[in-house]
Amino acid sequence: MTEISKLGEFGLIHRLTKDIQTKNASTRYGVGDDCAVLSYPDAEVLVTSDMLMEGIHFDLTYTDMRTLGYKSAMVNISDIFAMNGIPRQLVVSIALGKRFTVEDLDAFYLGMKEACAKWNIDIVGGDTTSSRTGLAISITCLGEAQAEQIVYRNGAKETDLICVTGDLGAAYMGLQILEREKAVYYAQIEDYNKKVRKAQTDKDEAKLNMLREQRPSVEDFQPDFAGKEYLLDRQLKPEARGDIIQKLNEEHIRPTAMIDISDGLSSELMHICKQSHCGCRVYEKEIPIDYQTAVTAEQFNMNLTTCALNGGEDYELLFTVPIGDYEKIKEIEGIRQIGYITKESLGCMLVTRDNNEFELQAQGWNPLRDE
Amino acid sequence: MTEISKLGEFGLIHRLTKDIQTKNASTRYGVGDDCAVLSYPDAEVLVTSDMLMEGIHFDLTYTDMRTLGYKSAMVNISDIFAMNGIPRQLVVSIALGKRFTVEDLDAFYLGMKEACAKWNIDIVGGDTTSSRTGLAISITCLGEAQAEQIVYRNGAKETDLICVTGDLGAAYMGLQILEREKAVYYAQIEDYNKKVRKAQTDKDEAKLNMLREQRPSVEDFQPDFAGKEYLLDRQLKPEARGDIIQKLNEEHIRPTAMIDISDGLSSELMHICKQSHCGCRVYEKEIPIDYQTAVTAEQFNMNLTTCALNGGEDYELLFTVPIGDYEKIKEIEGIRQIGYITKESLGCMLVTRDNNEFELQAQGWNPLRDE
Repeated sequence: MTEISKLGEFGLIHRLTKDIQTKNASTRYGVGDDCAVLSYPDAEVLVTSDMLMEGIHFDLTYTDMRTLGYKSAMVNISDIFAMNGIPRQLVVSIALGKRFTVEDLDAFYLGMKEACAKWNIDIVGGDTTSSRTGLAISITCLGEAQAEQIVYRNGAKETDLICVTGDLGAAYMGLQILEREKAVYYAQIEDYNKKVRKAQTDKDEAKLNMLREQRPSVEDFQPDFAGKEYLLDRQLKPEARGDIIQKLNEEHIRPTAMIDISDGLSSELMHICKQSHCGCRVYEKEIPIDYQTAVTAEQFNMNLTTCALNGGEDYELLFTVPIGDYEKIKEIEGIRQIGYITKESLGCMLVTRDNNEFELQAQGWNPLRDE
Repeated sequence: MTEISKLGEFGLIHRLTKDIQTKNASTRYGVGDDCAVLSYPDAEVLVTSDMLMEGIHFDLTYTDMRTLGYKSAMVNISDIFAMNGIPRQLVVSIALGKRFTVEDLDAFYLGMKEACAKWNIDIVGGDTTSSRTGLAISITCLGEAQAEQIVYRNGAKETDLICVTGDLGAAYMGLQILEREKAVYYAQIEDYNKKVRKAQTDKDEAKLNMLREQRPSVEDFQPDFAGKEYLLDRQLKPEARGDIIQKLNEEHIRPTAMIDISDGLSSELMHICKQSHCGCRVYEKEIPIDYQTAVTAEQFNMNLTTCALNGGEDYELLFTVPIGDYEKIKEIEGIRQIGYITKESLGCMLVTRDNNEFELQAQGWNPLRDE
């Protein structure tokens, strides 16, 4: 393990970026000067930025640096797709405390590079600095789109169909499992510590020696994740839905409004409705939910629809299309029609399986509340 | 004072950005969707990103949120000027702990908006989230330049003149003063606490009551900053040198290499020399130093040249021009010629007042070392 201070700032930047070869024509100059230089003579430039803070957005007891690098890049890439754009460049800032090594940073960059390789994105710059405490990550993603191809949140029209990709609630259930296993692990530690304290009080040296041999370690702890792999992947290693954007373009379907689902379906749908000045009807029975999500919600005694509506971090796409695209959309795998757009005065309603209507609540996943 | 959680993420974003009116033709869509949309059909796009962490890059005992917002924007703007570009857009991410209020964020945004107003820059997006502990700020600045106008670090040529704007070392001396006054303040607190402990041991109630009345507060503490205003301003509220960029363009002077001085003259000069494959001679007697910097270095018993060479955060411009521009440069106020570029084999040398030569050391100001 190598201390970061040994390499120095410039040695570190060199180590992390020396194997980067830029692949996009729009990348004129990457890492190495005061700015990166990009060229977009024939398209609009899309820019998005997301910050991920340790203890708020991620927990290094559940994820490793490589997976975290992958996710940090993907959540930004997702925002470019959500405008119907093509991601091109990534700017990466990271602040980390003393406990991190050069190898941790290597792993983080490896994960980021894997995400970028998947979508042919260039890492063109950033900042590496230190933090007093936790790890802070800030990524800016740039992309491109023709002006007339860009899909905003504000273009949904009455009678448009509401579509969603993939399935919902899985990332949230993944988080529940990780938190449960973390609690189990801490309970084992607590239990062990109790036994040690008792042996100390009893002055039972034999018992103490035995306990020393049995000291539980993170490495030995085998969390019970069997059958839950999909949920964990959805939480820890989300995929931006560029595949769907490509399919929609191939089929010449242009959504009227689009957003990626980072804060939960309800919250995102309400953004679209608010900005488009319209209402909506969403059918509970049409909301796509994976089997594992359903089983796990049952085990946790949670309401499945609430998880799917308000669980965050699915990074699926939510979009609206004119009703005329109904047949074309039906043919595309991985897209589900869940409802339709109405007049604003009709509100944003969930139609339940038993045909009741409830107003949607934008509970969302709000990191400002999570402290 | 308003708790941030009261407004919620979207209420907060609305409050901070509702008065923003974008001014640049290149800004097609600002805050409010998954991405900002920019348009640069006739110029290259410059992108730079800097992260500022509490306890590493700033200390809220010396600076207030408004000044911090101003500086956070300016240090990014400075990087655009350092490429001979025009800054156009800012993307702002901020993570803050519970102790911060909505009014703190208002003040931070006010400072940023002031810096942006000065250079006609649009705030087009970002992320506001929470932090477990300190304040983390990450800003991305975008700008533009014609491809043939961009000045990189790698274009310096033998016989080029080395020029620097403004004066050096003042920001570093400002930091020394702030740290001294902080130490004085903490010493007063420590002294007070000692008196309280003694009175408690003596069970001297009268004394304890008297001490309670005299409890020192940050508000009452009047640090001794008389005559040091310039140094404090240089540290807390730096100005990016767009004025010089404008003058150079008016005079049709195109630097061969340029960088902004954030880590100290030595370190930046060595970046230019390394990337341009050349050496340099810099004359100690030509390095511009303000009178207050000199007086204060004397008071602190510090070597003035070392402060000017290695003190960071001046945010002045360091650039090289062909020797033929000598007469034109001489006429521009605020630019000093401090040396010239040599063959690489001659190394990077400082020529002292008594005509000795010393190899320049890139000590620089390295936040990775500062923990």
